[in-house]
Amino acid sequence: MVNRRMVRTASLVYSACMIVLFTDFGLEGPYVGQMKAVLYRDAPGVAVIDLFSDAPPHRARAAAYLLAAYAPEFPLDAVFLAVVDPGVGSKERRAVVVRADGRWYVGPDNGLLNVVSMRARAVCWWEVTWRPARLSASFHGRDLFAPVAAQLASGKSPPGTPVESPAGMSEDWPEDLAEVVYVDHFGNAMTGLRASGVAPDSVLHAGDHALRAARTFSDVSPGEAFWYENANGLVEIAVNQGRADAQLGIAPGDAIHIAAGDKA
Amino acid sequence: MVNRRMVRTASLVYSACMIVLFTDFGLEGPYVGQMKAVLYRDAPGVAVIDLFSDAPPHRARAAAYLLAAYAPEFPLDAVFLAVVDPGVGSKERRAVVVRADGRWYVGPDNGLLNVVSMRARAVCWWEVTWRPARLSASFHGRDLFAPVAAQLASGKSPPGTPVESPAGMSEDWPEDLAEVVYVDHFGNAMTGLRASGVAPDSVLHAGDHALRAARTFSDVSPGEAFWYENANGLVEIAVNQGRADAQLGIAPGDAIHIAAGDKA
Amino acid sequence: MVNRRMVRTASLVYSACMIVLFTDFGLEGPYVGQMKAVLYRDAPGVAVIDLFSDAPPHRARAAAYLLAAYAPEFPLDAVFLAVVDPGVGSKERRAVVVRADGRWYVGPDNGLLNVVSMRARAVCWWEVTWRPARLSASFHGRDLFAPVAAQLASGKSPPGTPVESPAGMSEDWPEDLAEVVYVDHFGNAMTGLRASGVAPDSVLHAGDHALRAARTFSDVSPGEAFWYENANGLVEIAVNQGRADAQLGIAPGDAIHIAAGDKA
Repeated sequence: MVNRRMVRTASLVYSACMIVLFTDFGLEGPYVGQMKAVLYRDAPGVAVIDLFSDAPPHRARAAAYLLAAYAPEFPLDAVFLAVVDPGVGSKERRAVVVRADGRWYVGPDNGLLNVVSMRARAVCWWEVTWRPARLSASFHGRDLFAPVAAQLASGKSPPGTPVESPAGMSEDWPEDLAEVVYVDHFGNAMTGLRASGVAPDSVLHAGDHALRAARTFSDVSPGEAFWYENANGLVEIAVNQGRADAQLGIAPGDAIHIAAGDKA
Repeated sequence: MVNRRMVRTASLVYSACMIVLFTDFGLEGPYVGQMKAVLYRDAPGVAVIDLFSDAPPHRARAAAYLLAAYAPEFPLDAVFLAVVDPGVGSKERRAVVVRADGRWYVGPDNGLLNVVSMRARAVCWWEVTWRPARLSASFHGRDLFAPVAAQLASGKSPPGTPVESPAGMSEDWPEDLAEVVYVDHFGNAMTGLRASGVAPDSVLHAGDHALRAARTFSDVSPGEAFWYENANGLVEIAVNQGRADAQLGIAPGDAIHIAAGDKA
Repeated sequence: MVNRRMVRTASLVYSACMIVLFTDFGLEGPYVGQMKAVLYRDAPGVAVIDLFSDAPPHRARAAAYLLAAYAPEFPLDAVFLAVVDPGVGSKERRAVVVRADGRWYVGPDNGLLNVVSMRARAVCWWEVTWRPARLSASFHGRDLFAPVAAQLASGKSPPGTPVESPAGMSEDWPEDLAEVVYVDHFGNAMTGLRASGVAPDSVLHAGDHALRAARTFSDVSPGEAFWYENANGLVEIAVNQGRADAQLGIAPGDAIHIAAGDKA
């Protein structure tokens, strides 16, 4: 009894240790900095980490699988400020807060938060009903989502009302997404497939290319293409010391096919 | 009398909460990090925000209109470290500090700070006469401007002498600049025009294209070009879920024309 | 005896003021943010500076000369987290800690740390034998090097054993590298040559171009190519208000030749 009460009391003074940014804004330009200025003003002393600033532009669905692969390594109290938001400023697009397996997510209700939600053992959704004094039509990242993230990081409750089902959650959301969702600085192509569901001897087909798996870059020859389980568990297409995107002609949105190893 | 004296006393213990970086250095490479290391050394504990690291390279005039549009949302005590400085190392180019409407600006006296100055209700200029022990010929951002910004952020006075008129202030500085001043990560083209001075039914001409206004992206069809008042009050040319720069063939420096709506 | 003991005691409470990131990961994508999350978790309160996130990809040798030119301006207690690591995950590639002239370096033993080491007056090497509970095959920056950097920044000893000679240290490591090692945001091309070893009237040959020296950009006409001693002491090829890479057709890896001035 005493222990339980102490735990509850402790949760009242809970304060998140970290705000994690996941957007398609680009590191270029003012947008990430403008959001950070709001976070610093409203939640001073909280660390802000840039995770992705170049999530696939406007593609909330692909970005949802990317976010779900990278979120689990962050602390349980982290607040994700997630903005891939082509519908910004429309009346149909709601703003939401999601609590999934102990982490917070703030963003548009356009599918971006669906995959972290559907993979969670425990999940709650809120519609954000709070509005700031100044709300631009095109930059809710700065005006709405960042202040809400700062509030959550300061230990406050979601400023809205619980909702049952997010938009589009009943539609086509496969457990994994068999397409390229991101190409990194080196030209490596991440897919929306978790490697844990793919047999290690599977052959991956991307365009005209059939690729076998390797453990890591240095296990194949320089210039050789392969697929591997990346450091966040995704199937990723790479070339040792080369660019897979250029060498194989692949880009975000391209479909990927997996075949059993003996068919290669 | 008492009140006035208290205000003066308060200003003595003034300490800026934030240093805001506005440069054309690029986030790539070492330059922004080298400046941050100086700021951290000389003003530990002060937050540093990257606003623009990719202001139009070498184009202090266009950058001046960009800075003036983005500065007002920052706190009154913010210190802007603003460096677009093609004349670095020349004897003609002075280093200056500007206090404009309660915010500090440090940078070259090449026009970059003219627009924040001419739009301010209260403004003072200082020529920076202080010099560091080590002053390179090509990187005054690190060697001169960053230490001065840190001094201001630590509550010290500008290390120089008041001056009356900055360089070129009497020349051609229109209230707004009718050209593209920046293209962002999405391909949206910001102009140097404030939307507050443009009628909402005006037609914007960029190259061969005539564009009507919309409130925000989701108010037009995907792929449709339009102009709108961006979240910082500038006239901006955009395409819903597309790239305006590629679709319309526009780039920084291109002239923009505004016509009354009935002439479209 | 007393003095020596006091020094040892002092070293126990030593705490680095700064962790400096030097990688080829790109600022795009999640990698730098993932490392920062580890650093924040393991060394909270320590400033983290992005120096280079776009060191020459996979080219540890060229990167080694770049790192050695930029490290000396950082404080003596700084910890450099340096990762250009094409051999990640292979058994041959060791992880090392270097203490060189009072600064710490953590990274792969593939030559990346050889130039800071060979230019130091005092240097020690350790092989990192510590391993984390989770070690991916492809991202030792996050899983191995960042935790070690945080440990050093927290005042702990290198988690490994002293070693005598790093890999490849006896091979071909000239004092300076006569090639382009980096092209920056402006198109300026840094070489691996220290200007202190080049006579000011020397002519630099890059491809078909012969370039004379200038003190800084504003000393030549707009559009004119030249070489100069950059703010970190390197010979750098530039064009006043233009792009040297495009105008001269030069790229990282290109050889540079220096000739006495009278041969131009």
